[in-house]
Amino acid sequence: MPRMSARSLSEFAAIAQLEALFQQASSKVELGIGDDAAVLKSAGRWVWTVDAAVEHVHFERGWLSLADLGFRSFQAAASDVSAMGGAPFAALSSVIFPAHFSAAELAQLARGQRAAARSLGCAIIGGNLSRGTELSVTTTVVGSVQRRALLRSGAIVGDELWLCGELGLSAAGLRLLQAGELRATDQAARRALRSFRRPQAQLTAGLQLARVAHAAIDVSDGLAGDARHLARASGVELLIDLQALAGALSPALRALAPRLGVSPIELALHGGEDYALLATGPRRARPTSARAIGSVTAGSGVWLWDGRRRRRAGRGFEHSSPNTR
Amino acid sequence: MPRMSARSLSEFAAIAQLEALFQQASSKVELGIGDDAAVLKSAGRWVWTVDAAVEHVHFERGWLSLADLGFRSFQAAASDVSAMGGAPFAALSSVIFPAHFSAAELAQLARGQRAAARSLGCAIIGGNLSRGTELSVTTTVVGSVQRRALLRSGAIVGDELWLCGELGLSAAGLRLLQAGELRATDQAARRALRSFRRPQAQLTAGLQLARVAHAAIDVSDGLAGDARHLARASGVELLIDLQALAGALSPALRALAPRLGVSPIELALHGGEDYALLATGPRRARPTSARAIGSVTAGSGVWLWDGRRRRRAGRGFEHSSPNTR
Repeated sequence: MPRMSARSLSEFAAIAQLEALFQQASSKVELGIGDDAAVLKSAGRWVWTVDAAVEHVHFERGWLSLADLGFRSFQAAASDVSAMGGAPFAALSSVIFPAHFSAAELAQLARGQRAAARSLGCAIIGGNLSRGTELSVTTTVVGSVQRRALLRSGAIVGDELWLCGELGLSAAGLRLLQAGELRATDQAARRALRSFRRPQAQLTAGLQLARVAHAAIDVSDGLAGDARHLARASGVELLIDLQALAGALSPALRALAPRLGVSPIELALHGGEDYALLATGPRRARPTSARAIGSVTAGSGVWLWDGRRRRRAGRGFEHSSPNTR
Repeated sequence: MPRMSARSLSEFAAIAQLEALFQQASSKVELGIGDDAAVLKSAGRWVWTVDAAVEHVHFERGWLSLADLGFRSFQAAASDVSAMGGAPFAALSSVIFPAHFSAAELAQLARGQRAAARSLGCAIIGGNLSRGTELSVTTTVVGSVQRRALLRSGAIVGDELWLCGELGLSAAGLRLLQAGELRATDQAARRALRSFRRPQAQLTAGLQLARVAHAAIDVSDGLAGDARHLARASGVELLIDLQALAGALSPALRALAPRLGVSPIELALHGGEDYALLATGPRRARPTSARAIGSVTAGSGVWLWDGRRRRRAGRGFEHSSPNTR
């Protein structure tokens, strides 16, 4: 990478194709695809992540186009950078592809990656290609942070709990796909499928949060589970106001959930598949992209408040999601 | 990563285990495993690469221990950084593992990665864990370069052609493994198997080359093929002196090659699996780690000189290697 390294003649041709596709200038990138490694130049603080999308685990080929897969897998990695308050500026893509995978298919995948990268102002500057049995896309992204990185561990008792982005709709889309509804028959389903296939990392929100929030985490495994990580890292309790959370859910999700036999709140808490950010900070500083859905209190764990009683949030994704990831 | 992200309870336990294993201080690493991304801080120029080792493509489980796999896959990625004249300082590891993979097996893999990272003065600061069908290890490494990165494109007519590290022995080891010789019966086989299982990126050589060489490339697909890349990138011809090359090959390789029914030179030119560096530079500046094996001349392509005649080097790895990668 940076060399796109590969092991056969046709793969070398594929690399030339990718080089043309990914070509993009960036002041921090001195050298992109074509050598043993990419060369970056930048002072300051960087955040760095890697994320993998694996066939049969995170997706099935029938559920989304290769361009969707490229788009989605790229946003997933970028979402981690956003959760740290960073602006993604460069990425490497490592693709493992099955024997029958064609150059045209690789190009479709790459076009989706490129669309996602461009939407975030990020350059794809190299990668790696390998044969394998199942298709997987591993994306590593670096982002710059202005002053400091936004950690999971900074929440303070008295903070508001903030949500940036949408919860549950992508999980609803996944359930439609798992039920064989590959084409939307109405507006709500269309939005849910799009939410699964074309999620968007919360770049603007992440940058806003970086200035004012005390803590943040990428919500990708369901709100309850990821809130638990933030609570533990910060040594606090998070109290989620279910009415406020319900108010933050989209009409499309509320329309779809009954069809799926599950409550919208359940999908938000335990559905996973989201690319939202959960953050905490002082109420007076709440950014425009954030909605208040609760508060940070003394204690431990994640609690749900329905206006009358509080109960401990159940385990997230790992107990209730139909997905295998 | 940096968060080690994962999707099930046992995986969260695995992450804690990895966090303990990989713990290492580094002045350039502000935050390692445990959040959404790692945080780095450094001024200057960085090189960045990603490399994947995929089961059934780059290795079979029976050929090497999981610690060997971790070691080998890490060195492969680091070798790209060395070829750019960089010093690896931080890495993320993304592992896709089959359903039956245990925490103990993950720890074995991680111990091999850690041993490789330590041998290079590099910290593993995060990664990603995903389920999958086949085992694969994708490693992304950043390295710092002092003044400039060493590119493939800088070779100048009149340069000497330099080899740092060993050629062919690892490919001989691979052939032994493919023939079912999993345990060495003599010293030569022992060295060849070790060369395949525990290769070492040319860190010192890369740093020496960074000061004096005009161009360099990581030799991992066979000398002939990688020399062709360097020649093309630099717009020059490379003339390899077969006698000098033969003199650079190890006694172990010369002892083993007849048993494998192949010439040592053939394994060096087309065997692949090496972690050597090929570089060019002025004869007077040749570093101690480099051996002269030819020269840079006007023209194009890679040529072999046997003392009497010159002939064009055949295609590398892709035509002659028994490996499937």
